Amino acid sequence: AGSDNDARFHMGDGTLEISMRLHALNRARLCKAFRAIISDEDGDLIILEGGKSRCRDATDHEELFRQESFFHWCFGVKEPDCMGVIEPHTGKARLFVPRLPIEYETWMGHILTREEWRTMYAVNEVLYLDEISSFIGMRTSLFFPKGVNTDSGVEHPVPVIEDVVSSRTEKEFVELFELLSELRMVKTEMELDVMRYSAAVSSAAHVEIMQKIRPGMTEYQMESLFQHYCYSKGGCRYTSYTCICASGSNGATLHYGHAAAANASTIQDGSICLFDMGTEYHCYGSDITCSFPANGRFTDDQEMIYEAVLASQRAVFEKVRPGVSWPDMHVLAERTILEKLIAGGLLVGDVDEMLEARLGAVFMPHGLGHTLGIDTHDVGGMLSGHPKRDSRPGLKSLRMTRTLRKHMVVTVEPGIYFNPALIEKARNDPILSKYLRMEEIDRFRTFGGVRLEDDIVITSDGYENLTKVPRNVADIENVMAGAAWDSTP
Amino acid sequence: AGSDNDARFHMGDGTLEISMRLHALNRARLCKAFRAIISDEDGDLIILEGGKSRCRDATDHEELFRQESFFHWCFGVKEPDCMGVIEPHTGKARLFVPRLPIEYETWMGHILTREEWRTMYAVNEVLYLDEISSFIGMRTSLFFPKGVNTDSGVEHPVPVIEDVVSSRTEKEFVELFELLSELRMVKTEMELDVMRYSAAVSSAAHVEIMQKIRPGMTEYQMESLFQHYCYSKGGCRYTSYTCICASGSNGATLHYGHAAAANASTIQDGSICLFDMGTEYHCYGSDITCSFPANGRFTDDQEMIYEAVLASQRAVFEKVRPGVSWPDMHVLAERTILEKLIAGGLLVGDVDEMLEARLGAVFMPHGLGHTLGIDTHDVGGMLSGHPKRDSRPGLKSLRMTRTLRKHMVVTVEPGIYFNPALIEKARNDPILSKYLRMEEIDRFRTFGGVRLEDDIVITSDGYENLTKVPRNVADIENVMAGAAWDSTP
Ligand SMILES: [Mn+2]
Ligand SMILES: [Mn+2]
Repeated sequence: AGSDNDARFHMGDGTLEISMRLHALNRARLCKAFRAIISDEDGDLIILEGGKSRCRDATDHEELFRQESFFHWCFGVKEPDCMGVIEPHTGKARLFVPRLPIEYETWMGHILTREEWRTMYAVNEVLYLDEISSFIGMRTSLFFPKGVNTDSGVEHPVPVIEDVVSSRTEKEFVELFELLSELRMVKTEMELDVMRYSAAVSSAAHVEIMQKIRPGMTEYQMESLFQHYCYSKGGCRYTSYTCICASGSNGATLHYGHAAAANASTIQDGSICLFDMGTEYHCYGSDITCSFPANGRFTDDQEMIYEAVLASQRAVFEKVRPGVSWPDMHVLAERTILEKLIAGGLLVGDVDEMLEARLGAVFMPHGLGHTLGIDTHDVGGMLSGHPKRDSRPGLKSLRMTRTLRKHMVVTVEPGIYFNPALIEKARNDPILSKYLRMEEIDRFRTFGGVRLEDDIVITSDGYENLTKVPRNVADIENVMAGAAWDSTP
Repeated sequence: AGSDNDARFHMGDGTLEISMRLHALNRARLCKAFRAIISDEDGDLIILEGGKSRCRDATDHEELFRQESFFHWCFGVKEPDCMGVIEPHTGKARLFVPRLPIEYETWMGHILTREEWRTMYAVNEVLYLDEISSFIGMRTSLFFPKGVNTDSGVEHPVPVIEDVVSSRTEKEFVELFELLSELRMVKTEMELDVMRYSAAVSSAAHVEIMQKIRPGMTEYQMESLFQHYCYSKGGCRYTSYTCICASGSNGATLHYGHAAAANASTIQDGSICLFDMGTEYHCYGSDITCSFPANGRFTDDQEMIYEAVLASQRAVFEKVRPGVSWPDMHVLAERTILEKLIAGGLLVGDVDEMLEARLGAVFMPHGLGHTLGIDTHDVGGMLSGHPKRDSRPGLKSLRMTRTLRKHMVVTVEPGIYFNPALIEKARNDPILSKYLRMEEIDRFRTFGGVRLEDDIVITSDGYENLTKVPRNVADIENVMAGAAWDSTP
């Protein structure tokens, strides 16, 4: 219907308008792949459960709802407590929504009619949740995605629907989960447009921070500024993950910024900042890290480490394209870092030997990058049929073991960190210690770290960079001194 | 120990320093009351479980942790996944903390030693969680708080500890839950200092918004500005609840601002704003609503409604003190509103009759206010032994049915709303309709609403207002025109 083409999400003037055709296309891709791979029976139904509204602990504090990611991919619905049913044969999509009590109108707002729901999300039909059992009726060829997140180990559960039983197997449910994950991993043009937007908003916010930061400020003031910029200028209400605003030695803690390490240090003159922050729009995220000197001027040591990381990122950019193995890119990044640390006088020895000994993981203990999408550590990195997780230091932290495909979005985020515990361990290791020039490394004891993280789309012959921040040392110093910077996609 | 007196929480320069003695006093109050009311056996142990870290759905997205409220009251611990054991006989407090893997050091930060934990939270001893069973050993006089939140109906669960059984009864667990709730409801001086701070930060943020708002801006830009102000100026990372930034007719939706009604309207010239926003510091919250014209100048109608609500709030302020029944205050607020609406020409008839017919609930469908503390809708409003919930319109929305006690903190938040559905219903009601002058009320169809919400402490002979925002029409217009305003406590 013509009107369905007008269904849109946006957050007002100047924010991106997103057509609900994005989700219709996702569903069409799902139906096609489902029929080709899992089942082509006439009565098949794919059933998804949306995220649920929830109170914090045993309180009356209702958490701000953010849609469950698989459900969002299929339907783009912002409301909690819904379900969705897709007929892979016909492509028909039905939403099942809560039948809200009349008091909802007073407390929460207008109760949408079924037709208003239908128009807003451009689905074929909307029914009430209490009608789902009778809608399914005698049909038993029911498919639910079921699987385990390969990063967190948390299980995506199968919903319980009263009076309804499926004749399909657990194995088929897992197949559906993996199929959905694979589809989510490869983005459509419409999805990429949203991700271009999120990354541009985040980029501009990082630039804002580079221009406003001064030694003596507190780290969380930069987190606050980032969030404020993304929300007030871009309509982005949620960050993709908790902001990491690490200055000085805090930068050596990879996931700094959580409740127990709460971005609460004062930013010191002479220290380097490592700010890993990304926003999301319509649940499509970004994940960007900038590193720069708090006072706007790199010291020689800071520049040396910075250039090593930048060289590592650029080495990867030169190679990425469809068919390239992601673990190979990790090793390439590591090799570049090791070479630069040798050139900088911090390491001594043969690079191939160092790689074999996993010395790189002392300075870059995390993986080179991960898939990015509706989740920050997006799905699809380690599905069945692809290589298993490597057990060696550094490589074991990779969230993706497979080769790149066109329209995957991945982060490329090499880094060098001076983590006292890891360096101490290496120094006491009979093999690793011989490569370390401790008399030089000691100078970096409280340095922290440098990470450069860009979000890229794999294209047919290379990549497109969604991240629009200054990366050259000269550009950073100029921007921090007040020069203009254009972050538009 | 002397060093224990130095244990403090703060967020850096200019933010409030909070001594961990605040929590030691809470525990001492708990022990004393427990021995007097529940049990005075030598081997008694009170066991509390802290909040748990959690991923969003089946993802690798770790939610920003905020401590469970009962646990916070007892221990002030910001880290997830802990437990606490208190001996009511000796007052001794022990924390049980996770034994973190060595990788934590790389990803999350320094692994605290037990002594560092002990010093940071000024408890008697710190052990590891995997030691809790053996610590408890053969003891069976174990007390767990167990109960149901009277606002949300969510149950506070009893933790499962391997190899441990309690000989105490479910009834005793409920008693402990109610005892803790009662204690949490009556604040200590140290707690009040924190609440003064939260309310002052929120007040200043509201003033900032009054000065920066312009028609044409989007509602969520004001939410963003509020959060940014509270975080960057006050070190307050969490809001007490999702911001309600309602302009124009959105103001008639009491809990506007959630994911499905996301503060996304453009603020129109000539509309009135109803902004209900509060921040928390060290988990102690504030809950403040300001209403003002978007363009800085009240129209006659806006001023009439505003003055009615202000008169209602002031009528309550004149009466509040220990021993006063909260439902009586609700009726007083309602009476004032009805009188003013009669004077304003919107209603006609006898106020006592109107109260009897519950006409007030058409214009103020919510309760007058609620307890405030570590939760926004704090505990203790409806414990056993106090009056049950009233079933009549308006009164049934009261979250507290009891009389006021010294050092309770409550919100006083009368409001007048023009909710089309409620007015339509009243117009079709044979009794209510006769009081309505619809020819006048029709003018307010898209008005929205006015709410004025202050956070007050009940003192021995009245109250102390923690909220420091302009409330007079003249003050508001002056502040919106740029006049300075002092929100310090
Ligand atoms: Mn990342
Ligand atoms: Mn309130």
